Amino acid sequence: MTLLERIEFPSDIKGLSQAELEQLCSELREYIISCCAENPGHIGASLGVVELTVALHKVFDTPNDKIVWDVGHQAYAHKILTGRREAFKTNRKFGGISGFPKRTESEYDAFGTGHSSTSISAALGLAVGAQMQGSEDNFVAVIGDGSMTGGLAFEGLNNAGSLKTNLLVILNDNQISIDKSIGALHNHLMKVTTSRKYNRIKKTIWDRLGARKIRTHVQNFTKYIKKGILRNTSTSNLFDSLGFRYFGPMDGNDIGQMVNILSRLKEIEGPKLLHVITKKGKGYKPAEEDQTVWHAPGQFDPVTGIRVSGKEGASKFQDVFGHTLLDLARVNEKIVGITPAMATGCSMNIMMAEMPDRVFDVGIAEQHAVTFSAGLAAAGMLPFCNIYSSFAQRAYDNIIHDVALQKLKVILCLDRAGVVGEDGPTHHGAFDLSCFRPIPNVMIAAPLNELELRNMMYSATLPEYDTIIIRYPRGTGNGTPWKDEPFSRIEPGRGVILQEGNDVALLSIGAIGHNGSLAVKAARERGVSVLHCDMRFLKPIDEELLADVCSKVDRIVTLEDGALKGGLYSAVSEFVASRNIPCKVTGLGIPDRFVGQGTPAQLHQECGYDVEGILKALTNG
Amino acid sequence: MTLLERIEFPSDIKGLSQAELEQLCSELREYIISCCAENPGHIGASLGVVELTVALHKVFDTPNDKIVWDVGHQAYAHKILTGRREAFKTNRKFGGISGFPKRTESEYDAFGTGHSSTSISAALGLAVGAQMQGSEDNFVAVIGDGSMTGGLAFEGLNNAGSLKTNLLVILNDNQISIDKSIGALHNHLMKVTTSRKYNRIKKTIWDRLGARKIRTHVQNFTKYIKKGILRNTSTSNLFDSLGFRYFGPMDGNDIGQMVNILSRLKEIEGPKLLHVITKKGKGYKPAEEDQTVWHAPGQFDPVTGIRVSGKEGASKFQDVFGHTLLDLARVNEKIVGITPAMATGCSMNIMMAEMPDRVFDVGIAEQHAVTFSAGLAAAGMLPFCNIYSSFAQRAYDNIIHDVALQKLKVILCLDRAGVVGEDGPTHHGAFDLSCFRPIPNVMIAAPLNELELRNMMYSATLPEYDTIIIRYPRGTGNGTPWKDEPFSRIEPGRGVILQEGNDVALLSIGAIGHNGSLAVKAARERGVSVLHCDMRFLKPIDEELLADVCSKVDRIVTLEDGALKGGLYSAVSEFVASRNIPCKVTGLGIPDRFVGQGTPAQLHQECGYDVEGILKALTNG
Repeated sequence: MTLLERIEFPSDIKGLSQAELEQLCSELREYIISCCAENPGHIGASLGVVELTVALHKVFDTPNDKIVWDVGHQAYAHKILTGRREAFKTNRKFGGISGFPKRTESEYDAFGTGHSSTSISAALGLAVGAQMQGSEDNFVAVIGDGSMTGGLAFEGLNNAGSLKTNLLVILNDNQISIDKSIGALHNHLMKVTTSRKYNRIKKTIWDRLGARKIRTHVQNFTKYIKKGILRNTSTSNLFDSLGFRYFGPMDGNDIGQMVNILSRLKEIEGPKLLHVITKKGKGYKPAEEDQTVWHAPGQFDPVTGIRVSGKEGASKFQDVFGHTLLDLARVNEKIVGITPAMATGCSMNIMMAEMPDRVFDVGIAEQHAVTFSAGLAAAGMLPFCNIYSSFAQRAYDNIIHDVALQKLKVILCLDRAGVVGEDGPTHHGAFDLSCFRPIPNVMIAAPLNELELRNMMYSATLPEYDTIIIRYPRGTGNGTPWKDEPFSRIEPGRGVILQEGNDVALLSIGAIGHNGSLAVKAARERGVSVLHCDMRFLKPIDEELLADVCSKVDRIVTLEDGALKGGLYSAVSEFVASRNIPCKVTGLGIPDRFVGQGTPAQLHQECGYDVEGILKALTNG
Repeated sequence: MTLLERIEFPSDIKGLSQAELEQLCSELREYIISCCAENPGHIGASLGVVELTVALHKVFDTPNDKIVWDVGHQAYAHKILTGRREAFKTNRKFGGISGFPKRTESEYDAFGTGHSSTSISAALGLAVGAQMQGSEDNFVAVIGDGSMTGGLAFEGLNNAGSLKTNLLVILNDNQISIDKSIGALHNHLMKVTTSRKYNRIKKTIWDRLGARKIRTHVQNFTKYIKKGILRNTSTSNLFDSLGFRYFGPMDGNDIGQMVNILSRLKEIEGPKLLHVITKKGKGYKPAEEDQTVWHAPGQFDPVTGIRVSGKEGASKFQDVFGHTLLDLARVNEKIVGITPAMATGCSMNIMMAEMPDRVFDVGIAEQHAVTFSAGLAAAGMLPFCNIYSSFAQRAYDNIIHDVALQKLKVILCLDRAGVVGEDGPTHHGAFDLSCFRPIPNVMIAAPLNELELRNMMYSATLPEYDTIIIRYPRGTGNGTPWKDEPFSRIEPGRGVILQEGNDVALLSIGAIGHNGSLAVKAARERGVSVLHCDMRFLKPIDEELLADVCSKVDRIVTLEDGALKGGLYSAVSEFVASRNIPCKVTGLGIPDRFVGQGTPAQLHQECGYDVEGILKALTNG
């Protein structure tokens, strides 16, 4: 029996010796690697914080003391140590445990996360609320240097630093988000980390302290703090300025050091920030060497580190976006690319490689990405701003207030629209169609396939197109050739008939229309003749086409990979109800609940818009 | 002819002597006071930046050089100096000039603003875009200390500080948003401002430099910078850390000092931050003495400073909110209040006065306000978080990701819902009904009158109520008594019939239903019998009531003070279309364009839902 197998809950860690703790970290790492090799996940971040996680659970009294993991995909060790060792094998699977902390999953998950930069605000709320009820529990937010650039984190620091609440923020500095961290904060942290003073402190003070017992340490530690020796005053003032006592930087992959410092910080009142340096992918050589790829590498051979490659042939929408953007930028010098820390994920790195000066990775900062794009547009440039659909919720006001209201032409490409799969409810791009439809001056389109995405991107650059949101899903299309096709203009606001029919109409928008086509074919085999339209544009919606459809059928099924309320289903319902057309409208899309994790196919089925579900809606007249 | 009357454009300022500049500032101040006395506006902020504005237009070559005014209500002097002196008399009026910078209004308005914290991102986009096209123009963002706490400002600083673009950020520190500024950043700035070193610098260096000519100064200045004398290193490192060269703090109400420093900073490359101290309301004693009230005081006598008081008797929804919150908090110790810098505006200051420890003004930080509230809810508290509807767009993701997904019970009160009046399109609360309806786990309600708001707030605290959004407009209700009424439970998800009828149905939500009632009465006088329902809840919508309505009439008019697409109109259309009910649905609400400024009554009329417009829809069968 391994040491790890004897750990069911954090209480089992309390008595472990330093050597045992080191062994536990090593076993945890192996376990994470072997599980993720078979069942893919966010391995890099989790490997980096193994020691920090063990130290937190050794020092703090969880679940009374609360840890909030920012973003949360680094919480694998935390999950394994808190009653979910076996369940971890179902990580991110349909019906399995979540890849992120989740309050309903465990009392050790103090606050659910998924999107970045929420941890300080959430932990502060937990801390203040507990304190008001007389609790003396401890509250810890663990946040990466990438997440720290999100404005929400700053808002949290600003509030926490003035409230004087007992809160420990651990800045987990691995100098990478998914791509390399960037921005002034990153430069600042680099300066701190490499400063001579830090290295001197690390050597002379910490090493000496490290050998003694904890009680004496706390005294000494306090003395050192008073002397200012441990406070790296020349460089730490960013956080000092915000009312935090800054400690560090320290080696977050040194379990002894982590246990020591956390034990001491536990005794210090008020808002504190501990800056730890960790290595993303730590302990697994392939992951250490290519941290971007190993952020979430998919399946791999744990021994060789060789990744299982995907299906050959089919292009991802991301590839289409990346190559098309570069193709367009080559012939139009006004085009610039803007990404909030997702250059690789959305494939803007393709343009970046050839035109580094025309692509701006602004860090995890969706709001800024959009307002900065609006500024670029006001200066006469033509910005393509790519944001994952669910993260674009962060920029909702910026899209309204800075882009749409001013009619500034920004081409907003929303990647990961619709259900995204294993990342689950925090990451599904469910609300974009609904929440952007009410915004004036904005066109909204969703391509049916790879070629349509390419041509929509091209068409969006034409003068007749206004500000436009183009949303498309994660992953591969239906295999429509696109790469060497000449650009073809798409008529704005017009849909197309994919299939004539007269029993019932299927109006689809976006790539989910491919499921629609398969269902239409199956319906035909059952003797039901379906008129299938690819609407292409949610806004402006093709009213001429809708009128034509309503003149031919008295039953319409709408199909969208997005929330039913507010999107295509609503638009078609409004059309029919406002004209009192005797036509029944049935909506297929994401129902009014948060949908869990699973493969997109599983989730389509759960929501009733897999091929079978669509067929049922078409044939159940 | 006054000096001001001779200034049509900034070019007319260039040749003015120091004495003339001082005179101009004084005349500008008088002009702003006299205009605002009659035609109300944001006087306090604008009086504070008169010298800064004159100095900017003297030193920089606008409109080639670009100034972005954060929030923008401090830009009155800017408007008056840039071709809009006479037009300023129409400030904020229907058809008049906007109270905020607006690109379509003047080429001197480089970027439209209204919401806070956008200026750095926008100016950076303008600067980067211009630079890419070979321009050497200058770019300035003027941002208040209140706006600087918004996370977006931090995201902008973080990006700008690493890009090395030529950008001057002027931090206009008047230590107040609308209420007193708060947060760690504010404390930091206070420390800077009151430090002995600053005062020494101010006296010995700046005063000496001030007497010499500019060319020599730039040399000396550079020397001083190198020596670090002018960089207040002990306290300025917040901005230094983010890659900005920090200068200040300086007296922003000293025109000579402002012209000097700006002339010099113009010659310095890269991202720079100039910290100026100004006095909100400067030069008008009543405004200096009560800065919160004089943020936007309404009409007043310019000589006595006596404000014209509003109509007696009618309560504002804000009063109802404030007093009801206190009443509820007195009997339920779990209740806490959270406001992002709008304690006075939303009347949370009433609870704050009696229970300062249970109200959290988190500064201009809507995202944090919501996630912090979620944390408080997770700790077992019952947070009432009040945000203006249009500002809640900033917290869209937080409401989805941190509140709704986790089913954390936060009572979100959205003030200023619907058209708000003179603040215009940036501030209309047009999108809340539409954008929140697709979000699972959230109830959405809008009270018809004062009493309904009070009882909704009470009901929301009951266990049977989930997370709820309660949205209500700015200003007075219809006079329904509320203050001494006992609390009465509102049935969740149920509407009420206000008036039976059988020709046509009017389904209204919220206080605009009062217009509806008047129209229903007028219709009756014309022989049209209207069934009028106050839906109360957009979500869950009362399907039983809808079915009942559809069984009685074949024509429905929906009425909401919000965007038509996605809100009540959509919900009712979906109900009718999905059941193929032969009923025509006509929607009254905000159409699919940005609506301008004016009194709410003017805007209701423009949008077709004043009493006359509703009557027309009801009677034009």
